[in-house]
This record gives sequence, C-alpha cells and structure tokens, in this order.
Amino acid sequence: MKIKIDELKQLMKTALTSKYYSPEEADLMVEVFLHAELTGKNTQGILKLLGTEPAQDIKPKHPPKITKETNLSVLIDGGGAAGPLVGQIATNKAIEIAKKNNFAIVGTNNTFSSVGAIGFYARKIADSDLIGIVAASSPRGVLHFGGIDPAYGTNPTAFGFPTNEFPIVFDMAASAITWYGLVRAKALGQKLPDNVAVDKEGNLTTDPEEAMKGAILPFDRSYKGSGMAMVVELLAGPLVGASYVHDNGDWGTVFIAINPELLVGVEDFKTHASDLVKKVKSGRTKNGEIIHIPGYDSEATRQTILDSGEIEMEEKLINDLKAKI
Amino acid sequence: MKIKIDELKQLMKTALTSKYYSPEEADLMVEVFLHAELTGKNTQGILKLLGTEPAQDIKPKHPPKITKETNLSVLIDGGGAAGPLVGQIATNKAIEIAKKNNFAIVGTNNTFSSVGAIGFYARKIADSDLIGIVAASSPRGVLHFGGIDPAYGTNPTAFGFPTNEFPIVFDMAASAITWYGLVRAKALGQKLPDNVAVDKEGNLTTDPEEAMKGAILPFDRSYKGSGMAMVVELLAGPLVGASYVHDNGDWGTVFIAINPELLVGVEDFKTHASDLVKKVKSGRTKNGEIIHIPGYDSEATRQTILDSGEIEMEEKLINDLKAKI
Repeated sequence: MKIKIDELKQLMKTALTSKYYSPEEADLMVEVFLHAELTGKNTQGILKLLGTEPAQDIKPKHPPKITKETNLSVLIDGGGAAGPLVGQIATNKAIEIAKKNNFAIVGTNNTFSSVGAIGFYARKIADSDLIGIVAASSPRGVLHFGGIDPAYGTNPTAFGFPTNEFPIVFDMAASAITWYGLVRAKALGQKLPDNVAVDKEGNLTTDPEEAMKGAILPFDRSYKGSGMAMVVELLAGPLVGASYVHDNGDWGTVFIAINPELLVGVEDFKTHASDLVKKVKSGRTKNGEIIHIPGYDSEATRQTILDSGEIEMEEKLINDLKAKI
Repeated sequence: MKIKIDELKQLMKTALTSKYYSPEEADLMVEVFLHAELTGKNTQGILKLLGTEPAQDIKPKHPPKITKETNLSVLIDGGGAAGPLVGQIATNKAIEIAKKNNFAIVGTNNTFSSVGAIGFYARKIADSDLIGIVAASSPRGVLHFGGIDPAYGTNPTAFGFPTNEFPIVFDMAASAITWYGLVRAKALGQKLPDNVAVDKEGNLTTDPEEAMKGAILPFDRSYKGSGMAMVVELLAGPLVGASYVHDNGDWGTVFIAINPELLVGVEDFKTHASDLVKKVKSGRTKNGEIIHIPGYDSEATRQTILDSGEIEMEEKLINDLKAKI
C-alpha cells in the first residue's frame, strides 16, 4: 500500500512518544527509521517499532549523558536508550565539533539496540561537507578466521563523502549474512545460502538454527573480512567504553568526522570526488548497464519518493503499528 | 643464506646514498625495507632496490615539502621521492601532532612508488600509543563491481592498535591478488588462481598477461571489496591532492593517528584491547591450532630475528644488490 510520508512519520512518532521519549527525541528517531525505509534498508525501519523488543517499549535507565568532552571529542553513555536516538545525538555533536575544529570523534556506549541504518549517519555528516566514518559493534556472531566460535558482531561500517552532486555513502556489514538474515530464514523455515555460517562444531551449515548456535562467516569467508570485523570491534568496543566479544545488550558505536579543510580544502575535495565518480561511471560494463555508485545513485530515487509525499509500505506492518498505539 | 642484519642495513644504505639520498634519508627508508623483510612482506623489501626501477636510481624532482599545515594536519608534496621516505616523514609528523593535539591527519602526494609495507607505518603509530590508520592509492588495476575496466588501485589499508603486549596490526589490499602477483606469475610462466582477474572483455582469466590488460577483482569478488577500494581511492586520492582512477606514477597516501585520550584514555584502551585479544584467542579452532591475531602474534618472531642479529635472505638478491653498489 501507499502511505503518506507525513502519516507514516506521525504514526512512528505517536508510538515513540507513548512511553519514554519526548516529541523532540521521537523526531530524531523517526528521521533514522524513515531514511531506512526510503533507502530499502527495511529491516532497520518500521520493524524496529514492532516485534518482540519495540524501541518505544524499552525503558531507558537514564537519558543519554556526556561522560567526557574535549575540543575534538565526546563520549556518550546512552543510558540504555534506543540506538537511533543516541546515534543522532552523537552525529549532531560530531558535525558541530568538526565544523568548528576540523575533526571530531564521538563514541557511544550503553545503548539499547544498534543505531540502525548506519549509512544514515555517514550521509548526514557528508551532507555537512565533512567526511564521515561510522562503525558499530554488536553482540558476537561472526568468527575470527581460523576459529569456530563467534568472536565479533556483524559490525557494520559506513563511509560518507561529499561531492558537488550527491554524497557517496558506502556501508557494509563485516558478516556474510546479517543476524536478521538468520532470524528471518528461521522464521520462514528457509535454508541459508551455502557458505555463510557454521554450526557449533565449525562445519558449514544451511540450517539457520544451527548457525545461531554456531557462527557467521566474515563477508569474504576469509581473513580480510575477519580483520575488518576485528578493527570495528576495537574501534566501537574498547575505544568507546562498550562491551566487546560479548553476548550482552551493550552496543557501541564510533562516529568520526573529518573536515577536508585539513588537507586539500572542501571545494577541491568535492570537485575531485565528483570527477572520480564521473571517471568510474565512464567505465565499461559487460552488459551495458550503468555502474552503480553507492549512496550517490540511490539519492535521486530517495528524493523522488520524498517529493511525491508517499511511500510504498507493507499494509500488515502499518496495521500492526496502528494496533500498538 | 643468513646475513647479519647490520650488514644488510649497510648494503641497503650504501645503495640508497649512492646518488640522491642523504644518510639520514637512507636510514629512514632502510627501516621500512628491513621491516618488510622481517615480517615476510618480501616483495616490499630489498626487491625495491633491484629490478627495473630501483628506488635509489629515480631522481627526485625536489625534496619532499610541506604545502599545508594546521594544528591537526600536514599535506606533503613528495617531490617524486621514493614512497618509503615520504611515508616515514608523514608518519613522524602524524605521531608528533597526535601526541600534542590528540589527532593528526597527514596526506602525501607526488611520490615515486608506493610507501611499501603499509603495516610498518600503522605499527609505528601504534608503538606510540596511538591508533593508526594508513591507506594508499595506486595506479588503477581493480574493477568497480559491475564494471569491467580497472578503476581503483590495489589500495591497501593498515590499522594499528596499541595493547599492553604487542600492537595489533592488520593490513590488507583491496584486490584479490596484488599487481606484483600478476608480474610474478607472468615472469615465471605461471597461471593465476581461478577467480582473481578478468581479461579486457571482462571474462575471467588465469593468464597474467591478459589480466594486466583487463582488471583485477576486489578481494571478496563482490561489492564490499570494491566499495573498500573506492573508499581508499577517495581518502588517498582527492583528499590528499593525488591522482585517482589513473595510470600515471603519482601515488597518494593518508596517515591518520587518533589518541585514545580523546575517548576512554590510553591505559583503559590498551587494557581492553589486550583483553579483547585474550578473549578472541580463547575461542576454539577446528584442529586445535591457535587463533592468529595479525601483527600481534608475528611480533615475537620479529623480535627473535632482531635479537639474533641475523636474517635469512635469498643469496641471489644479496649478490644482485652488491653488484649494484
């Protein structure tokens, strides 16, 4: 079904303000969930308000609070609040600091759930003419290459770069399949792809339930993907005071903003980043299709949906949310 | 053959000071080449002083010079000098700045050849109790996923993290095989592995010569590896004033140093990074082997070789270098 974007936003806001969050806090979170829906990351959108642990139903222990602050950094204790709220506060801080002092690093710990669609934050930083790097740790599911026990989270990373047109936004999980991918396959009684997970004894399995007891493979099924997962675990675990190699509910995230003024300058960077996109896009493809630049190409689609004022959603999900409020 | 490390260093220094470099500059470069030999990256060691373009025989256009400097950054025009010299100058600057102001980003452009064993610089930064991130662009060889023309360099990245024992140093190329891998296979008349490169028409090939006319695949043969290559191309191309998506000899590198004092503090970070290593290493493996932590595990070997004062080298290479000086 098509639903008016304003109506969808109001529905989500009503749900989020029903118990623990202020209208201002809800607006920040709605922006993240809507972005996920607009960019096809629909496991990170309205679904976060449904299911067994809806964001609006988890009581924060205390409001997010700053536990350390320097001219270049902020450390935030999320207080058990929903990840997207803490992620928005962190991103806004990172932009504010990097606009003033040319670099910022903001760490968050003690949030309930992940920050959600991680590309959202990298894009927001890039929209402010800064280079954004965001990395998030999560409960362990991915093995360290050579091992068979889960060591790292699915640990996504996102990079955002401003250009003279749309920002380039690249994000990826360090795992061959997301945790949600396992949950979904199990719920639907489906098998997993051939080479994404092992069972408790380290043997490849296509059974999602066995995979949940075992471990997910790194995205390249090798040591580089495992190394990337480890790097994210270090940056979004020990560096930000969050848990690591863990099974508990404490998620950590690091937000980095670099002002190109530190090196070539913003205008120069954007001009050459645009030219880089042009050069890459001018390359040949085997079947004559266009070369896809992450974030950059999808931005036109996102704008078209926003301009239309309406978005296609699954009717059941809308009704489920309505039933909750 | 075994050769005394001091003798090897002196040989390399004599070669490097034969034409264009001062003893101090040569010492900086020798440190990088020796590290490559000590850590098994032997394509980045003594070989750089042999072959068709020995580092010591390429005349720099001018000494490396700083073209921009802020309290957090330096931009360096390498003047066509050898990459490892410029890399050392950049790393030392990054450490100096980050020790003082808690963050540093140093960009280099216009160097002859790559900076070499990129893990060396990340380790050096980590040895100063800072988190190091180093990324280098190079002439294009790797395709953008979906395309068939080369777009990006093999674009290695290195990360260094201090712990209470040895630093964790993870480095990786964004490509399924290095450019040198193609050169070597061609020289030895060997075939490439099955799934690492395509020919000019975008068809998989095991012929190194066809691969050189075609393109190398990203390390995961998919969009995530290609995205990583693109991220490095942006950071070590447009951001540092170097070439990008190019075939010329201008190599760019970016060096980032982050002081954990900005967030949890150095001691806290090192303690938890050490604990992270311990937790990961306590995981099971299928055959009972130990779990390998990059950089961290090899450090003991490196120290043992250094302490012994002797290193195993191919006699032919030593003789070739002697013949040149």
